[in-house]
Amino acid sequence: MSQPYNRVYNFSAGPCTLPVEVLEQVRDELLNWNGSGMSVMELSHRSKHFGSIIEETEADFRSLLGIPESYHVLFLQGGASLQNTMIPMSLLPEGGSADYVVTGSWGQKSAEAARRVGQIQVLWDGKAHNYDRTPEPAALQTTPGAAYVHYTSNETIQGVQFFEDLAFSVPAVCDMSSDILSRPIDISRYNLIYAGAQKNMGPAGATVVVISQDLLDRCPKDHHPMLDYRLHTANASLYNTPPCFAIYVCGLVYKWVVRQGGVARMQEQAQAKSQLLYDAIDSSGGFYSGHSQKHCRSVMNVTFTLPNEELTNAFVKESVALGLDGLKGHRSVGGIRASIYNAFPKEGCEALADFMGAFARRNG
Amino acid sequence: MSQPYNRVYNFSAGPCTLPVEVLEQVRDELLNWNGSGMSVMELSHRSKHFGSIIEETEADFRSLLGIPESYHVLFLQGGASLQNTMIPMSLLPEGGSADYVVTGSWGQKSAEAARRVGQIQVLWDGKAHNYDRTPEPAALQTTPGAAYVHYTSNETIQGVQFFEDLAFSVPAVCDMSSDILSRPIDISRYNLIYAGAQKNMGPAGATVVVISQDLLDRCPKDHHPMLDYRLHTANASLYNTPPCFAIYVCGLVYKWVVRQGGVARMQEQAQAKSQLLYDAIDSSGGFYSGHSQKHCRSVMNVTFTLPNEELTNAFVKESVALGLDGLKGHRSVGGIRASIYNAFPKEGCEALADFMGAFARRNG
Repeated sequence: MSQPYNRVYNFSAGPCTLPVEVLEQVRDELLNWNGSGMSVMELSHRSKHFGSIIEETEADFRSLLGIPESYHVLFLQGGASLQNTMIPMSLLPEGGSADYVVTGSWGQKSAEAARRVGQIQVLWDGKAHNYDRTPEPAALQTTPGAAYVHYTSNETIQGVQFFEDLAFSVPAVCDMSSDILSRPIDISRYNLIYAGAQKNMGPAGATVVVISQDLLDRCPKDHHPMLDYRLHTANASLYNTPPCFAIYVCGLVYKWVVRQGGVARMQEQAQAKSQLLYDAIDSSGGFYSGHSQKHCRSVMNVTFTLPNEELTNAFVKESVALGLDGLKGHRSVGGIRASIYNAFPKEGCEALADFMGAFARRNG
Repeated sequence: MSQPYNRVYNFSAGPCTLPVEVLEQVRDELLNWNGSGMSVMELSHRSKHFGSIIEETEADFRSLLGIPESYHVLFLQGGASLQNTMIPMSLLPEGGSADYVVTGSWGQKSAEAARRVGQIQVLWDGKAHNYDRTPEPAALQTTPGAAYVHYTSNETIQGVQFFEDLAFSVPAVCDMSSDILSRPIDISRYNLIYAGAQKNMGPAGATVVVISQDLLDRCPKDHHPMLDYRLHTANASLYNTPPCFAIYVCGLVYKWVVRQGGVARMQEQAQAKSQLLYDAIDSSGGFYSGHSQKHCRSVMNVTFTLPNEELTNAFVKESVALGLDGLKGHRSVGGIRASIYNAFPKEGCEALADFMGAFARRNG
């Protein structure tokens, strides 16, 4: 299973695999971007060169997800984690409250960060079931007057996912860090979407925020500059020096997604790739146990356990020797996690499924 | 003046020139870092691979500036701009006050961000002189009981610089974004230093913070997670996914500075490079006027004006044609700005000085 450049199949949860052809382009133009005489890392963020990069990057992103002009697209720093604080600081008024849906570790983190800012209501929490499921959408009744409702579309650690754009009667805020660009969305269902780049978009260090004009209008004026959506919007993400290189790589990944056939094609591939692994779980006669309930099995992060820790350790050790890297599960869930984002090749899933079968036969 | 890879001399104020040999190494290991089978952009931030990168990067940084274990070194996101808010949020107690020294545009921004958090005293402000000078250190008498005093060691836009480590009787906080690693410092004079990477260290997107243990002890507990120096310190900069690639490039730049002979050698070179340009100004018979007073002329950003805007525009246009890029001054000062950070080659300063002489003779 030798790959170009002696690369491995990288199942890391993020940062994670990027498309090889994107990396090749980055390499080839590293010392002189597009005849500028400079690396992208050296371009002034106020230059026409970088201006063309960030404009094209935004345009491609908008095109991929069908985002109209009534939404702003920002490229910020600080990851989803900083958004977890910026959102309630900007949108939770004195004496108000916001609703949170907690389907896993990231939902927990979002809710905890918001609690330091103001009052929240947890609409639903999967903790009693060790976060093995998403709720029925009908179970999510928002609090009248809630400033917004927050949910996490895909829980990276537990591997549970919403496959639809939930409909709410209050503004919807969604952390899409680990499944953005993996399927078409109905943008009108959302008022704010955010995502760290380092799973489906590019290297760590850039964060994409999509915010509707009507939600922006609710944000406070004269807020702390770097925590101010209004200021970032007014400056088209250039209030301060943005993470230029990370934005540039995101732009190359967006063009790669376009070449692949867009997000509908990404969705087909994600379903096919994850099915290979879920089939390997379900056909193992109980040797492998999927963590997630079947109705909400993530097509991005496939989580499962083995009969005991000794076998889990042997599985990880043997997989690494086969060039299947990053499969050890998060300590909070244990077992194995295979993260198979957009850029992860189907051949890697086939290789893992084959190995899972062989390992189960030898040890079952 | 043809350079390798058809590169130009890049006088941008940041992002800016990086060492060619650093860029070559980034290029050469872009698809497979150190036999890992992955790009640095694809390494999990929890992997032993990235662990070795960030540990070495921190160790080299500490070694270059002589930073002992009683100070923590953090690699964060958000640039100096986010620090401008984090610092008062963390260090300015309810009812307390902090002192600010305003020597230019960055000092102004720092003071403005702090005013949104609490009360500050401006100890000195160079506005009346259009920020053409730094004050005499003796003029800076801190307010008794001030939580800290903040200053900017080098003003990127105006080109004025402090060349000594100021001594204060309250904790000293210094924005060293544009001259860090350009000279040896006496770390004991500082309690908090911060610097965006994109001038003397690497690509935009990483921010280095050095904070003393005693100042850290003053920070609030259970603060907003991403704004919490305690949390970042307790997690060794890995509370959330850090800007891994930017940190890696910073690490390569640190090793390059070590190979050049360390920060003392950087200081010698900065003095020699800037002298070439200041000599061209001073020998022009008044055709060029330096913005900064002579005692505080920055060795990083050389700012000067021409007799009129027509000549300024002609200067910029002709310089670009000669491969001298990014010389147009910031709109707030006008004229020309030549940013010549550590990685900027002396040959580029010689080329600019030659051009300055020829241009003045033709147009003077």
